[in-house]
Amino acid sequence: MSKLIQQTIAGIQPLNKEAMEQARVRQDNLTKPTGSLGRLEDLSIQMAGIQGKPLPQIKSKAVIVMAGDHGVAARGTSAYPQEVTAQMALNFLHGGAAINVISRYIGARVIIVDMGIKGDLSENSGLIVRKIAPGTCDMCSGPAMTTDQAEQAIEAGIEIVSAEIKKGLDIVATGEMGIGNTTASSAICAVITGHHPAEVTGRGTGLDDNQLKNKIRVIEDAIRANKPDARNPLEVLAKVGGFEIGGLAGVILGAAAGRVAVMIDGFISGAAALIAAELCPQVKDYLIAGHASVEPGHRHILKHLGLKPLLDLNMRLGEGTGAALGISLVEASCRILSEMATFAEAGVSSKGG
Amino acid sequence: MSKLIQQTIAGIQPLNKEAMEQARVRQDNLTKPTGSLGRLEDLSIQMAGIQGKPLPQIKSKAVIVMAGDHGVAARGTSAYPQEVTAQMALNFLHGGAAINVISRYIGARVIIVDMGIKGDLSENSGLIVRKIAPGTCDMCSGPAMTTDQAEQAIEAGIEIVSAEIKKGLDIVATGEMGIGNTTASSAICAVITGHHPAEVTGRGTGLDDNQLKNKIRVIEDAIRANKPDARNPLEVLAKVGGFEIGGLAGVILGAAAGRVAVMIDGFISGAAALIAAELCPQVKDYLIAGHASVEPGHRHILKHLGLKPLLDLNMRLGEGTGAALGISLVEASCRILSEMATFAEAGVSSKGG
Repeated sequence: MSKLIQQTIAGIQPLNKEAMEQARVRQDNLTKPTGSLGRLEDLSIQMAGIQGKPLPQIKSKAVIVMAGDHGVAARGTSAYPQEVTAQMALNFLHGGAAINVISRYIGARVIIVDMGIKGDLSENSGLIVRKIAPGTCDMCSGPAMTTDQAEQAIEAGIEIVSAEIKKGLDIVATGEMGIGNTTASSAICAVITGHHPAEVTGRGTGLDDNQLKNKIRVIEDAIRANKPDARNPLEVLAKVGGFEIGGLAGVILGAAAGRVAVMIDGFISGAAALIAAELCPQVKDYLIAGHASVEPGHRHILKHLGLKPLLDLNMRLGEGTGAALGISLVEASCRILSEMATFAEAGVSSKGG
Repeated sequence: MSKLIQQTIAGIQPLNKEAMEQARVRQDNLTKPTGSLGRLEDLSIQMAGIQGKPLPQIKSKAVIVMAGDHGVAARGTSAYPQEVTAQMALNFLHGGAAINVISRYIGARVIIVDMGIKGDLSENSGLIVRKIAPGTCDMCSGPAMTTDQAEQAIEAGIEIVSAEIKKGLDIVATGEMGIGNTTASSAICAVITGHHPAEVTGRGTGLDDNQLKNKIRVIEDAIRANKPDARNPLEVLAKVGGFEIGGLAGVILGAAAGRVAVMIDGFISGAAALIAAELCPQVKDYLIAGHASVEPGHRHILKHLGLKPLLDLNMRLGEGTGAALGISLVEASCRILSEMATFAEAGVSSKGG
């Protein structure tokens, strides 16, 4: 593995137990019955551990949306034509997509990255171009990308999130766009979690029954053709992954190395988190699952990562939408920890008092 | 029933189907696969029906927190002493409680109402005093309040929310505080949903096993002593309810009559919604359930009302905290409907294109 990836992994430290303990003690002294804010209390304590501060803060927020095309889309695994990847990237740049609206609402900046879109969008201002290639190869007839390209994708993610950390970043949401990328994600999920493709493959943007059967067959073909070694995440990414998935794995690793919380979106972001966590299990402590996707493989990914989603709203859009919504819950949890009065401050009698 | 209550109920109209249809058509033309935003799409369509506008907006938000004491608290049904109701009301007024923090975060104003706190807080500025009496009577030895008082409580809620609607109000969250009020809520829930008290009674602010057994026995005693008629919601409120619960039932009715969406918090707010919905079933279309409470009776209330909670974060604080968090999801849903680009506007190919 490249030096940058190795150094990044080596830089991912355990959470700060002392800050977590201080946050926990404060939670128990705030004017509410112990534990009555449920997961909001846990979130604030996790954030204390991530930031290494007893009173964690979320001021600077970003959503990193990585886009890439997939050679396997030619096999009819998506309800939408491949050109939609580039069209939606332009929509992101013009502020018209769901992720733009939600990001404006929660006060997060949106970073759009061309990790491998088919077609040249480089003239559009605001787009970060880290194009590894104009789309992956068809994974049914060989690896989706070379191992070198897989490393390049991860490195791009590390570099992009590191640049954001330099600007100030307290939490980052992962988002993506790529016609065909639920197919790659199902393949990654099947290989790493050990489930059969049929258990972890869904309708993506809206396949009918026959199209879903075809998608499962394509994933079986891809795994049979490539025989990825489940214990080698870089090989899994190269053989059945995607450039935006590799990029997001890099974002996740880079954020954790910089002690920044990562809000994971749905199924494709989850596949990226699987790659990241196989490369460095310690990264899991830095992850928060924004929501439960409709895609059936997502719950297997969350179980594998030991994560419980914050929201379950029947969403399946991707782009980082579920993650961005989740950020506001984490921000609320941190504000509660900092801003609520303690029993002593408010002169409120405590339990059994 | 009083004229105000009758008029308010008569004023609650069905949702605007035309606005809902226009919102639904627009949702299907936005740059995302149809239905991919799940419940966010449904929320925006419901809001269109409530506001009677194809592009509903949430600008003005309020949380109405009603506080009252309960005579039944003397029977040891709460882990906290009764004085905490007044102490927490002061905490609300000073901005130190969880509901204050969350309301500041979502940009909602907080209205604190003394519906029946034991003790005089009238010198505190910012408090709305609509005290029906300094606490209800012990419902184990007779009705908690008279039918007149029950009507006064509902009227106070109608008047308070009507005043807020005059200032501008697009959505209101219900919140409450009252030592002993999960006991009253369990009794209301048992009577109206027909479940045994043991099925709908929980640990409230933190009872142990023996205290929980006592609480269930107290609720059985209260129902046996009063024999409330499940088909008469005003009688149920009077016999086993509370002043803040009656007040919130009024808030719910008054908001719906003014075409304002109501975000219901947890168990106690749910008991108020049960009373309101029994008085006027049409009100249910105006309700959104903010979250699922840990209290076991809450899910029976939600089922009875036909509501599905937005959040499930293991919370059981009340005050309106779960409802206030839910408001930001509804606000996001309305912004998405208004601000996202359509396929035509963004030049994105649609499905199968």
